[in-house]
Amino acid sequence: MTNTQVTHIQIDNYGPWTVTPEPRREVDLQTMQSRLYADLSQLVGNRDGYVFFSRFDNMIAITNGLSMDDHALIQESVGNRYPVTMSLSVATGRSPVNALGTATEQLQDAGSAQDEHRREILRGRAIEEQFRSPEDVQIAHFDVNEATEKYTDQLNEFDTFIEIEQGYAELMQHMREAHGALSFFVGGDNVIAICPAMDAEDYRAVVDHVSEAVDVDLKVGVGRGETASDAGMDAKHALEACRAAGTDVEIDD
Amino acid sequence: MTNTQVTHIQIDNYGPWTVTPEPRREVDLQTMQSRLYADLSQLVGNRDGYVFFSRFDNMIAITNGLSMDDHALIQESVGNRYPVTMSLSVATGRSPVNALGTATEQLQDAGSAQDEHRREILRGRAIEEQFRSPEDVQIAHFDVNEATEKYTDQLNEFDTFIEIEQGYAELMQHMREAHGALSFFVGGDNVIAICPAMDAEDYRAVVDHVSEAVDVDLKVGVGRGETASDAGMDAKHALEACRAAGTDVEIDD
Amino acid sequence: MTNTQVTHIQIDNYGPWTVTPEPRREVDLQTMQSRLYADLSQLVGNRDGYVFFSRFDNMIAITNGLSMDDHALIQESVGNRYPVTMSLSVATGRSPVNALGTATEQLQDAGSAQDEHRREILRGRAIEEQFRSPEDVQIAHFDVNEATEKYTDQLNEFDTFIEIEQGYAELMQHMREAHGALSFFVGGDNVIAICPAMDAEDYRAVVDHVSEAVDVDLKVGVGRGETASDAGMDAKHALEACRAAGTDVEIDD
Amino acid sequence: MTNTQVTHIQIDNYGPWTVTPEPRREVDLQTMQSRLYADLSQLVGNRDGYVFFSRFDNMIAITNGLSMDDHALIQESVGNRYPVTMSLSVATGRSPVNALGTATEQLQDAGSAQDEHRREILRGRAIEEQFRSPEDVQIAHFDVNEATEKYTDQLNEFDTFIEIEQGYAELMQHMREAHGALSFFVGGDNVIAICPAMDAEDYRAVVDHVSEAVDVDLKVGVGRGETASDAGMDAKHALEACRAAGTDVEIDD
Repeated sequence: MTNTQVTHIQIDNYGPWTVTPEPRREVDLQTMQSRLYADLSQLVGNRDGYVFFSRFDNMIAITNGLSMDDHALIQESVGNRYPVTMSLSVATGRSPVNALGTATEQLQDAGSAQDEHRREILRGRAIEEQFRSPEDVQIAHFDVNEATEKYTDQLNEFDTFIEIEQGYAELMQHMREAHGALSFFVGGDNVIAICPAMDAEDYRAVVDHVSEAVDVDLKVGVGRGETASDAGMDAKHALEACRAAGTDVEIDD
Repeated sequence: MTNTQVTHIQIDNYGPWTVTPEPRREVDLQTMQSRLYADLSQLVGNRDGYVFFSRFDNMIAITNGLSMDDHALIQESVGNRYPVTMSLSVATGRSPVNALGTATEQLQDAGSAQDEHRREILRGRAIEEQFRSPEDVQIAHFDVNEATEKYTDQLNEFDTFIEIEQGYAELMQHMREAHGALSFFVGGDNVIAICPAMDAEDYRAVVDHVSEAVDVDLKVGVGRGETASDAGMDAKHALEACRAAGTDVEIDD
Repeated sequence: MTNTQVTHIQIDNYGPWTVTPEPRREVDLQTMQSRLYADLSQLVGNRDGYVFFSRFDNMIAITNGLSMDDHALIQESVGNRYPVTMSLSVATGRSPVNALGTATEQLQDAGSAQDEHRREILRGRAIEEQFRSPEDVQIAHFDVNEATEKYTDQLNEFDTFIEIEQGYAELMQHMREAHGALSFFVGGDNVIAICPAMDAEDYRAVVDHVSEAVDVDLKVGVGRGETASDAGMDAKHALEACRAAGTDVEIDD
Repeated sequence: MTNTQVTHIQIDNYGPWTVTPEPRREVDLQTMQSRLYADLSQLVGNRDGYVFFSRFDNMIAITNGLSMDDHALIQESVGNRYPVTMSLSVATGRSPVNALGTATEQLQDAGSAQDEHRREILRGRAIEEQFRSPEDVQIAHFDVNEATEKYTDQLNEFDTFIEIEQGYAELMQHMREAHGALSFFVGGDNVIAICPAMDAEDYRAVVDHVSEAVDVDLKVGVGRGETASDAGMDAKHALEACRAAGTDVEIDD
């Protein structure tokens, strides 16, 4: 059993802000968004969590080990340094997608993402210390087999991007529907998925499914831990083990 | 006729670096990648270009107005401030994808993306001043109709993300195949496409195609200019015009 | 009695790096230095410590509450994201300057600041949990009385800067010689000092000394805590109390 | 004759913002200030200017080559990405300090630095293109002889800092009074001064003065150019020439 703690991060009333009083320069928006993400990566990462940029105005974080006070401090720190504020909602659940579902609902109950009066909401609850375990987080780190040789060094960069993107789109939907897992593209040919308790056979079936559906060949390393940081680092080592052994699925024990 | 100048940006030998001597912490990689992108956004944006993060280790920029000297300075500035270096290749062509094709080929000719001896390549040529025109760049700014009402405020954030992502995946492939355009997700429910000379009817057909294929309803504002910055800002205003008038396609004149 | 834990942070072999193979652009050095400082501010600050930029290539941090493992992680994170590495040395002592003296010596024993083979040194020891107390850190937050009215709104900005700088130079030397305290300019008209156990009379004497020596009138708020963050926030509130009451010295209890 | 274009950069109503509604965390202020400076370094530096952090809430920039439109864009970009805004005032004059004097007066005429209604002022005028010359900017780059051997590797870091700071304090005041030059500490043992037309004998007298007054031995490389970037890089090369030849003053021709 996993017990993933998920935080839904939402920039308050962001869409309207980007075009008020008139459209802001795209390069400034891009800079601001990606730096906010980088900062959150550090703020959450320094407490052993992971953040994924997903849509940038809405981000999803794995926050096992972060208390509500930690969340409040992160919220305050961003409010002190950015022209925008953000709302945070924390939840757990039977699967990662269930946890997120609760987190999102708590935000939606507080008002619309574009309600100009809804600011710096902080809702939900963190897992209490005594209920945490080293099995709480399961992370799968996928990459594309021979991406450099087959794509990057052969196709134009956009066509490479389409191939990787297509693999990702199939993977993210399948993992969500079949397992309630949350999968995120993290750059290059890498996807990191937050999973419920899945075994080697489950992962093999996922790899096969993507290969058949869109002809993109993946391998995957899997790690478990009390925090995203632990599970994620184990997953990376497992992926290196795949590389060394030429296998498609490795689970770190 | 457009005359898009495209730059393929590639971090040198990045994959191996991320796992040498052993896997680096994901939060540091995410922070470094997104800050490098933010910096490039400013370095290129201050010269009226646009950069898209695409895969982060490979990025695509629209650089009309930037000389090869500008590119050299940007390359040097990144080399002075990051633990990694990057190669740049510049080209133009009949369509955006053709321009990128040439740019990527020039890089591939210089060596593999994972060749440890290939560093800080700078290839290609910029458009000479006398050949530049206010029609050189055509940019289309798409967003999803009622994304907040239909998705963000209704579904869990991952399912919203899947909807947006699905619309983007269909749009990027269709625009590339039908028109040789390069489309990039830029956050929220926004996609910015670098296009050849397309007219209102072309765009309407694209919007219809995506709606039929994946049931995601888009609208689009289109701008033209001598630089990405000019064309992009016109596109934003055109998109505001769609919003005001309730239309699906507006082209700024 | 205070028990300040001080960390000496030194960029490895930085001087030579800035001119190899030839001088690097100043704007890139300035950008890199100030961002490294900003990152350390967050990395240390998220663990309730304070960092001061002092000379930028050598920085001084108050790190009560940070273990040697925390230091190792910060060192690794910087190494993952910057073109330079840094060495860290941690110590405590009877006064802040004694603590720093030990920290610096440990680094010097490991080799010269410009020894190209001395990299990522990590020396010293953190205070063990059971020996920590709420009196460990004493912080004094000084500012200049009516700086805006007397200087900023009257003189040219450089002459204002000279006045502030002169006050700071006198304060830093006096506090170091008379008390073994470490005082740092932190922007505007603010100086933050890391102090041994000093009382209101001591601070009044300091304020009088600076006023007589260089005719710059200061006020000061003082706080104590288990960490720099706690003591520093109390000092800020005490400074607000000075402002409200028109007093020169306030100590938060 | 030099013709330095100086910009006074002032964060609007910053002091009050830092304590409203109550004091903000120091680490967030430090992070925000130093990142704002880093960004300005790039925004101005990409247009061949230099910015000095001086007091962080008030900064001084050398902006030969930047138009008022460039200034407006920089102001807008900061406004789009930070929780604070800034005012800019541009001027030239017989000496650098005269130019700054005019720039500051223009700001003061617009209202107090702590006037909550005075926001995003943009005043003054840039040098017209036809009046610019390769002698417009003279930059002197000072460093301390054998700083590593005599100080960094011998004293505790704060005492080293005091030595460097003392040298800087004397230099900044002397250069301002004797020559109307603006000198800024830029990290390590380096000071960059924006000078009127001074010759080798003038610089030798300055070096002698500081040596006699506070026993800190300096050397200096001097460069001239149409922009701060050109003059500053020449000054760096001249300083390298000092190092190679064992001389105290070198002027790049």
